[in-house]
Amino acid sequence: MYYTITLNPAIDMLTKVENFELGKLNRTGESNYVVGGKGINISLLLKNIGKESKALGFVAGFTGDFIKEELTKQGIKSNFIETEGFTRINIKLTTDTETEINSQSSKVNRTNILDFFSSLDELTSEDTVFLSGNIIPGMEDDDFVHIAKKVKEQGANLVVDSNKDMVLHTLKYHPFIVKPNEFELGEMFDVHLQSLEDIAIYAKKLQEMGAQNVLVSRGSKGAILFTHSGEIFSANIAKGKVVSTIAAGDSMLAMFVAKYDETKDFPLSLQYASAAGGATSFSAGVGKQELINELLVQINVEKISL
Amino acid sequence: MYYTITLNPAIDMLTKVENFELGKLNRTGESNYVVGGKGINISLLLKNIGKESKALGFVAGFTGDFIKEELTKQGIKSNFIETEGFTRINIKLTTDTETEINSQSSKVNRTNILDFFSSLDELTSEDTVFLSGNIIPGMEDDDFVHIAKKVKEQGANLVVDSNKDMVLHTLKYHPFIVKPNEFELGEMFDVHLQSLEDIAIYAKKLQEMGAQNVLVSRGSKGAILFTHSGEIFSANIAKGKVVSTIAAGDSMLAMFVAKYDETKDFPLSLQYASAAGGATSFSAGVGKQELINELLVQINVEKISL
Repeated sequence: MYYTITLNPAIDMLTKVENFELGKLNRTGESNYVVGGKGINISLLLKNIGKESKALGFVAGFTGDFIKEELTKQGIKSNFIETEGFTRINIKLTTDTETEINSQSSKVNRTNILDFFSSLDELTSEDTVFLSGNIIPGMEDDDFVHIAKKVKEQGANLVVDSNKDMVLHTLKYHPFIVKPNEFELGEMFDVHLQSLEDIAIYAKKLQEMGAQNVLVSRGSKGAILFTHSGEIFSANIAKGKVVSTIAAGDSMLAMFVAKYDETKDFPLSLQYASAAGGATSFSAGVGKQELINELLVQINVEKISL
Repeated sequence: MYYTITLNPAIDMLTKVENFELGKLNRTGESNYVVGGKGINISLLLKNIGKESKALGFVAGFTGDFIKEELTKQGIKSNFIETEGFTRINIKLTTDTETEINSQSSKVNRTNILDFFSSLDELTSEDTVFLSGNIIPGMEDDDFVHIAKKVKEQGANLVVDSNKDMVLHTLKYHPFIVKPNEFELGEMFDVHLQSLEDIAIYAKKLQEMGAQNVLVSRGSKGAILFTHSGEIFSANIAKGKVVSTIAAGDSMLAMFVAKYDETKDFPLSLQYASAAGGATSFSAGVGKQELINELLVQINVEKISL
């Protein structure tokens, strides 16, 4: 079974306003509300390709209820810890430009955190856990690292996708894969990556520090995969009209892991991952199986040496 | 029993952001969520002074659920018609200035509207109905007028507080009181009111058109009441530190009606109404009984002739 962890989920409120003015009363059109958060995006992509997952994390109040209900509607299991206050609403305001107003969720307390740790007790060696996104107010960085530790103690497979510090601190628990983009990889080591050779140097450093496989996304330049056996594969991206790149990286990661579990075939998994990233970029919401399959023919995966 | 009607309720999301920038990602502090809408404010004030009311109107989705739950928590009955989509969230963004982003609710359909009309079947001559605020997308102005008609057909007492056209169109159903501010009263007749004498001319016009009593609020200059028996009373406002004037007018109206029902005493009701308006202005949320009572001594009501 796949488990996804979203410690600080959100509802995205998508709305349009003409001629926005600070300090004034602005009127919007009708708003759309969609569930957000990296782990939840992964659950949605997995659902779209026919894989079951269970979403874990924290929710609070009427906004948290919406998240649970939406996941249930979409056929995704969840076991969130309920806390005081309200899960945040992030506002995506379309005027001439795109303005984002990201809110802070209410805090979790130590009891909530311990309850969350207990929710990991059901993990077994049959499971894969996506530990994604950032911590929620009230949690410490150490708690994030403890989650990675506990996942490994339960014998489950670990995938980490978070900010640079969290990724670096969890490498000792040997995540199956980490997925920085080119810029984030440079940031992890405080360097500016100039070439493919540079990328290779630091991707391999992540492997030395514990990552089994490293997938580096490079925007329009595609992605490069460094496997545990020392192979390197590159892939291009699909062409199409971008609707929103939100969740494209999450889709890539989810598809990669799911396809690898099925086939143990790295280049094939990279091809599907790249198609899934494109499918989500070209869709309102997370990409569907059909579009992923359509885009596959556009993706060329090559074995390279650096 | 008091009934309050809020056709287009809202959740107010109150949040702070520093250095807001259009076209960028802005991060807020923790948000507060409070139920909003003129009829709901009236129910809250009535509750604070120990009077029961039942809130009617339309709600939708998880945001509508929050409104129902909050009213239940506060001990206020409700019987909302549930519609498709989502009740709106209005964002009150505090930066250097106050910026409001008011959203549009999802539409109601004809069946929803007919169901709402049916929810008025329980009204009797023992009841008073506050018909407040604006219509919701999907409703016509005629539907608003029809509500006033139906309230009167059921024999209930009608109070109207809406935009100028809605007030004017419902005067034929003889509302017990209407409460325009000075500016709105001028707008109703497309004139600019210069003096107390002007106010009297147009307040009396509203009475000729059907209003029983007319309460004209004048901001810092207080309020003037024109009674059905031709008496005129003026009141000053209380002094204090204004927290928010949202719902101050609703509080004034609710208190006026409730006190008049108890005492049939116009000047006393005006005194309490003015204190209640102040109490709400000086509070986060709707004013409490205790503060209203404290402010009473500051309010002088005089009988005047114009």
